Amino acid sequence: MIKAGVIGATGYAGQQLTGLLVNHPQAEVAFVSSNSYAGQKFSDVYPQFYRVLDQTLLSTEEAMQAMDGVDVVFTALPNGLVFDIAQKAMEKNVKLIDFSADFRLDDAQVYEKWYKTEHTAKHLIRQQVYGLPELWRDRIKGARLIANPGCYTTASILAVSALLREEGLIDPDRIIIDAKSGITGSGRKKDISLLYAEAGESVKAYGIANHRHTPEIEQELSKVAGREICLQFTPHLMPMKRGILATIYVDLQKDVTEEDLYQVYEKYYGAEPFVRIRRGMCETRFVVGTNFCDISVRVDPRTHRAVITSCIDNMMKGAAGQALQNMNIICGLKETAGLDRLSIVAP
Amino acid sequence: MIKAGVIGATGYAGQQLTGLLVNHPQAEVAFVSSNSYAGQKFSDVYPQFYRVLDQTLLSTEEAMQAMDGVDVVFTALPNGLVFDIAQKAMEKNVKLIDFSADFRLDDAQVYEKWYKTEHTAKHLIRQQVYGLPELWRDRIKGARLIANPGCYTTASILAVSALLREEGLIDPDRIIIDAKSGITGSGRKKDISLLYAEAGESVKAYGIANHRHTPEIEQELSKVAGREICLQFTPHLMPMKRGILATIYVDLQKDVTEEDLYQVYEKYYGAEPFVRIRRGMCETRFVVGTNFCDISVRVDPRTHRAVITSCIDNMMKGAAGQALQNMNIICGLKETAGLDRLSIVAP
Amino acid sequence: MIKAGVIGATGYAGQQLTGLLVNHPQAEVAFVSSNSYAGQKFSDVYPQFYRVLDQTLLSTEEAMQAMDGVDVVFTALPNGLVFDIAQKAMEKNVKLIDFSADFRLDDAQVYEKWYKTEHTAKHLIRQQVYGLPELWRDRIKGARLIANPGCYTTASILAVSALLREEGLIDPDRIIIDAKSGITGSGRKKDISLLYAEAGESVKAYGIANHRHTPEIEQELSKVAGREICLQFTPHLMPMKRGILATIYVDLQKDVTEEDLYQVYEKYYGAEPFVRIRRGMCETRFVVGTNFCDISVRVDPRTHRAVITSCIDNMMKGAAGQALQNMNIICGLKETAGLDRLSIVAP
Amino acid sequence: MIKAGVIGATGYAGQQLTGLLVNHPQAEVAFVSSNSYAGQKFSDVYPQFYRVLDQTLLSTEEAMQAMDGVDVVFTALPNGLVFDIAQKAMEKNVKLIDFSADFRLDDAQVYEKWYKTEHTAKHLIRQQVYGLPELWRDRIKGARLIANPGCYTTASILAVSALLREEGLIDPDRIIIDAKSGITGSGRKKDISLLYAEAGESVKAYGIANHRHTPEIEQELSKVAGREICLQFTPHLMPMKRGILATIYVDLQKDVTEEDLYQVYEKYYGAEPFVRIRRGMCETRFVVGTNFCDISVRVDPRTHRAVITSCIDNMMKGAAGQALQNMNIICGLKETAGLDRLSIVAP
Repeated sequence: MIKAGVIGATGYAGQQLTGLLVNHPQAEVAFVSSNSYAGQKFSDVYPQFYRVLDQTLLSTEEAMQAMDGVDVVFTALPNGLVFDIAQKAMEKNVKLIDFSADFRLDDAQVYEKWYKTEHTAKHLIRQQVYGLPELWRDRIKGARLIANPGCYTTASILAVSALLREEGLIDPDRIIIDAKSGITGSGRKKDISLLYAEAGESVKAYGIANHRHTPEIEQELSKVAGREICLQFTPHLMPMKRGILATIYVDLQKDVTEEDLYQVYEKYYGAEPFVRIRRGMCETRFVVGTNFCDISVRVDPRTHRAVITSCIDNMMKGAAGQALQNMNIICGLKETAGLDRLSIVAP
Repeated sequence: MIKAGVIGATGYAGQQLTGLLVNHPQAEVAFVSSNSYAGQKFSDVYPQFYRVLDQTLLSTEEAMQAMDGVDVVFTALPNGLVFDIAQKAMEKNVKLIDFSADFRLDDAQVYEKWYKTEHTAKHLIRQQVYGLPELWRDRIKGARLIANPGCYTTASILAVSALLREEGLIDPDRIIIDAKSGITGSGRKKDISLLYAEAGESVKAYGIANHRHTPEIEQELSKVAGREICLQFTPHLMPMKRGILATIYVDLQKDVTEEDLYQVYEKYYGAEPFVRIRRGMCETRFVVGTNFCDISVRVDPRTHRAVITSCIDNMMKGAAGQALQNMNIICGLKETAGLDRLSIVAP
Repeated sequence: MIKAGVIGATGYAGQQLTGLLVNHPQAEVAFVSSNSYAGQKFSDVYPQFYRVLDQTLLSTEEAMQAMDGVDVVFTALPNGLVFDIAQKAMEKNVKLIDFSADFRLDDAQVYEKWYKTEHTAKHLIRQQVYGLPELWRDRIKGARLIANPGCYTTASILAVSALLREEGLIDPDRIIIDAKSGITGSGRKKDISLLYAEAGESVKAYGIANHRHTPEIEQELSKVAGREICLQFTPHLMPMKRGILATIYVDLQKDVTEEDLYQVYEKYYGAEPFVRIRRGMCETRFVVGTNFCDISVRVDPRTHRAVITSCIDNMMKGAAGQALQNMNIICGLKETAGLDRLSIVAP
Repeated sequence: MIKAGVIGATGYAGQQLTGLLVNHPQAEVAFVSSNSYAGQKFSDVYPQFYRVLDQTLLSTEEAMQAMDGVDVVFTALPNGLVFDIAQKAMEKNVKLIDFSADFRLDDAQVYEKWYKTEHTAKHLIRQQVYGLPELWRDRIKGARLIANPGCYTTASILAVSALLREEGLIDPDRIIIDAKSGITGSGRKKDISLLYAEAGESVKAYGIANHRHTPEIEQELSKVAGREICLQFTPHLMPMKRGILATIYVDLQKDVTEEDLYQVYEKYYGAEPFVRIRRGMCETRFVVGTNFCDISVRVDPRTHRAVITSCIDNMMKGAAGQALQNMNIICGLKETAGLDRLSIVAP
C-alpha cells in the first residue's frame, strides 16, 4: 500500500484527492492537514466523509513531521506556500505532487512576474517535472517533484498540442482559448461573489488578458511547437459546481477536413486511457466525476478555422484526478488505478 | 413625492426596497446608507443599478442626520441595531418601517429570550404596529412605527389565520409548518455554507424547534384565534435564489370539503390585492418578483387534515414589497402603487 | 462473475444501475435494453459512457431472449409493464429485481386502487420480497423476485420504523412526512414542467394526499408496528438533480430526550453499512453519489414532537444502489461490493 | 392607448412581451393567440399571470380576424410561419413586429440557404426594417414591418459595430464571437436535452460554424463596415434561465489604449437609453430583467487584441424588450415607455 499524505486537505482540490485516495485499492491516507481546521475531524469539515474518513486534521507543522513515514505527499495549498515544504520533502526523500503553481513555470522570473511572489526555492525548479502524463509520461516516471498542471491549462494544452505537433497545420500565433469553468475552480473562499445568490444563474468573464494560467499554457505549447507561443486566453465563471469547457479557435494553414483533424487526434491520443476523442459534441457533464478529457473538433470552411472543444472535470483531470494519475506513475502502479470507475453521478 | 431614506441599503432586502423605490411613481430615494460600504456608490455595490441609482452610500451616522428632510425611513439592518434609530425617528416625527425583528414582538421578554439581545427601546413597543396589511390594515393607517413582518411569518400567517378565524374549523394545537426558502433569506453574508459550491444542488433543514420566526407566527395567530397558539415550525434552505413555499398541516375538526375551505379563503382574501387563492398548485416561480401571496389547499379525507401551500417571494411580500405596501398605506397612497406591475422575469 | 441484464436501461434509474454494474468488481453487464432506443449504443444515449459501455441496446423482446444466460435481471420500467417479464424470469429461474411498483404491494387490490392498473400476475405476489435490506435482509437472501422499494419510501421507512418498533414511543396515528426530491425522481420525460427553464429556481408540492408511495410506506410501517398505519405524505420537487430529504414529524408519547432517540437509532442501525446516524444535520449533498441513508433527529420540548430528517440519493439508496445491494445479497456477494466507494463528486 | 395583439404568446418570448404589454402605461393587450393552447386562458399556461391576464388564447386563425381593431401585432412564432400573417397585416395596414428570422435577411437566397425554408413573401422584404434602434432608429420610425433582431445578434452587433465604424481600428476579417446563452434561448420545447436533469450544471457549445444568427450578424456589420464581413460565431448553452454574454475577439490595427476604445463606445452610445458602457466587468445578472445592453472592453497589449464583453437579457433586449422599444418608436411613444423600470429581481 502506498502511504500518502495530503497537506491542505480541506480546500476543494485537497478534499477531492482525499476522496480518491480513500477509494484507491493500493493507497491509503497517511495523514490529512489543514491550517484552518487543524484539530477537527476531516468529516466535520466535509460531513459526506462521516464514517468514511474521520481522521483528525493536522496542522501544516505536524504534517511536516508526519511526512517521514509516507511515500508521497500532495500539497494542495494556495500559491507561494509550497517552497519550504518541497525543500523538506526532497530532503526526506518523499515524493511530492504539488497542486499549486509554485513549480509549474520553468523560469522563476516568469513566475515572479505573473504571481507577484518571490520564488524562494529556485534550486528545486530543475528537479520539477510538469505532470501532464499525455505529454511527459516518461519524465514523470522518475520524478520526485511533480508540478501538477492547472485546470484550464490541462484542458487547453491537451486540445492544442496535438495540432501544433503537426508541422504547418495551424498558425501558432493566432490561438484563442475561451474557457468556461465551474465555481469550485475559484476555491472554497468566503467571498461575496461566490455566494449562490450572486454566482447562480449568471455568467461572467474575468482575468481578461492577465490570467495566470496563460504563461503556463504558453510554456508547454512552446515546448511542443519548438518556438515561442503567445496566445489569447479568457476564462469565464459558469453557474455550476464543476467542469471546464475550453472553446479553442485556431487558424488552419493547410486545406484539411474535419476527418483529417480527427486523424491527428487519434494518432496522439488513441491509446491514452484518459483522453476521449469525440465525433459528437463535448459537454462538461459527460466528464464530471471522471478523469477523462473529451475533445471534439469542427472545421469552418468559411473562415478556415478549426474550432476545438475540450472538456474536463476541473477537480479531476484538472486537479485531483491528474495528481492521482501522476502518483500511480511515479509509484509504479497501473496508471488508471483508482481512476477507472465511472462516476455514477451523471446526470 | 414621498421622500424615503433606506438605512442598510446593501443587504438583499435593502437593495430590493431601493429598487422598488426607484420604480415607484410617487416616491424617491432621499438617501441610502450602509455601514460596510459607506462612501461608495450604490451602483458599485450592485452594478445592476449603474446609471439607475448612482447615489453615494451614507454611513449610519450620516443617515441619522439625513432623516430630517424625509417622510419615511426604512431600516434593513440585522436584529438589535434599530432601537436608537427608532427613537431618533420618533423624535424627529419621521415614519419608520423596520425590517428587523426588533419591534415585531409585543412582549420584550419574548424578544429577549428568542433573540438573546437586550431590548433597549421597550417604551416604543406600544407604538409599534405589526405591518401585515391583510390583518391590521386599519391600525397601520395611522402608525408611525411599523414592524415589517418576517418572510416565513408572512407566508405562514396569511395561510393559517383565515382558517383559524372560523370557529372550530381546525385544531389550533396541531399546526405544523414545513417551510422552504431560497438562499437570499440567509442574507448577504461571507459564509462558506452559502457558497454556490456548497448550497447549490442540495437541501437541508435548519433551526428545527428553535427558529426565531416561531414566536412571531404564534403571536399573530394567537391574536387571531383569541387563545394561545403553540406550533411546530421547520425552515429549510433550497438551492434557489428567492421564494418561499410553506407547506402547512392542520387537523380538521369539522367535516368539510376542499370547496368549503376555498370559500373561507375567498371570504377573507377575495378583495385583497396581493393574496391570490389558487385552485391549482402553488409554485414559488409564480410569485417571484411580485408582491403576491398565493395560497392553495387540499383536503385529505384519509387523515382528516388540510394541507395548505402558501408561496411568496421572500424579498417582496416577505420583505421589501410588504414594506412598500406599508409605506403606501401610511402615506395615504394607493396601496398597490409601485407594486402593481408583474415582474417580467419569470421564467 | 455475476451476469446481469438491465431491461429499461435508458431511464435515469436504469442508467445509474448500469453504471454501478460497470464498476462492480464481481459483476458484468450481460445486456442492456430499451424500447425507445433499441439498436442504438448505450453510449449514444448517455455519452458519458463513451468508451466505457458501448453495447448496443436490445429491444424488450430481445432482452427476454437474452435472459437465458444471465444470473439476475433488473427491470427499470414504468409501472404496469413488468408482469409478463417477471413470469418469464421465474420460469427461466432467473432472479429478478424490479424497480417498479408492480410487486411492492402485498395486496393486489391496493395496487389496483392506487395505480389504476390491473395486476395480471397476482400469483407471483406471494413470491415477492420487499427489498429493503435493513428490514428484511434474511428474507431477501433466498428470494427470487425482489420488489425494489421506492425512493421516498426508503427514506421514510428507515427513519420511522426504528422509532415505531419501540413500544409506545411515538403515536402511530400522527405521522407526517414532508419529503423533498430532486428532479430525476420524475424520470426522463419530455415534459414541459421538467425543463430547466421551468423547474429551475422554484419549488412546489405535488400529489398532496394521493401520492402512490403512501400505501407502500404504510404497508411496511404497519408490518413493523403490528397495526394499521395511516399517515400523511407530501412530496415536493426541488430545483436540483438528485437527492431526497424527508422531514418527518412524530408525536412523542413518552418523555424522552434527543439522546434517547439517538440510542434507539443506534440500536437498530449501528451495524448497518448504509445507514449513518448523524448528530449534526442532514443535507442531501452528503449522500449524493452514495448508497447511504443519513438520519438525524431533534426533539421539540414545546410541542412534544420529534422532527426527523432522513436523506438519501434517490438514484442510489432510492433505486439503483439499493437494487445492487439486493443483488449482492441474493447472489451471496459481500453486501457492500460495488457500493463501498464514496462518490468523489461532492461538492 | 395602443392596442397590441400577440400571435404566439405562449412561447417564452411571446410570454415576456405579453407581460411587458400588461405593464406598459400606454398600451393594452388586444388579444393573445397560441396554436398549442388556443381556447385556454393565458394564465392557465403561465399561472404567474393569474388575476393579471386571464384572457382566452385565440387560434392563429382567430388572431388573423382580430387584427382589424389593433394598432400593432407582434408575431413570436417559429421561423417560416410569418409570411402569410405579414401579408395580411400589410393589407390591413396593421404594423407588424416579427420576432422570427423571416424578414431579417435582406437577401431571400441567404434566408433560404441558412434556414432551408422557401421564402414565400419576398415582395415584403423591401418594406422590412431591421429593428435595432441603436443602428436604424430613423428608418424604424416610419416602418410598418419590423424584423426584430435575434438575441445573439443584438449583443454581437452592438458590441462590434461601434469599433467597426472607426476607420482602420480593427481588422474586419478576424472577428470571433464566442457567445453564451441561457436556456430560454432554446425555446419552450419538449426536448430531453433541455430538461433540468440534463441541462443543469453543465455547459456545451452547439451550432459551431453553422448557427443561423451568423448571416444576420454579418449582414448588419457589413452595412456598418461598408464591406463584406465574414466572421466566426460560436454559441454555447449555459445552466441558467436567461441572459447572454458575448465574448468578442478583435485584432487591433492601430496602437490604441483601453481608454481610446471606451471613448469610441461613449461616442456612439453615450446618449443611448439602453446601452451602458461599463468600466467594470459585465455579468449577465446585471441586465437580467432589463432592456440594457452592457458593454465592457479590455486591451491585451501582448496579443494586440481587444476583448469585448457584451451582455443582454436574451428575452428583453434580445427579444421582447427590443420589440417593445420598436413599438414605442413606430407608435410615436417615448422610446423607454414600459421599459424604464429596473427589474427588482436581481439577485
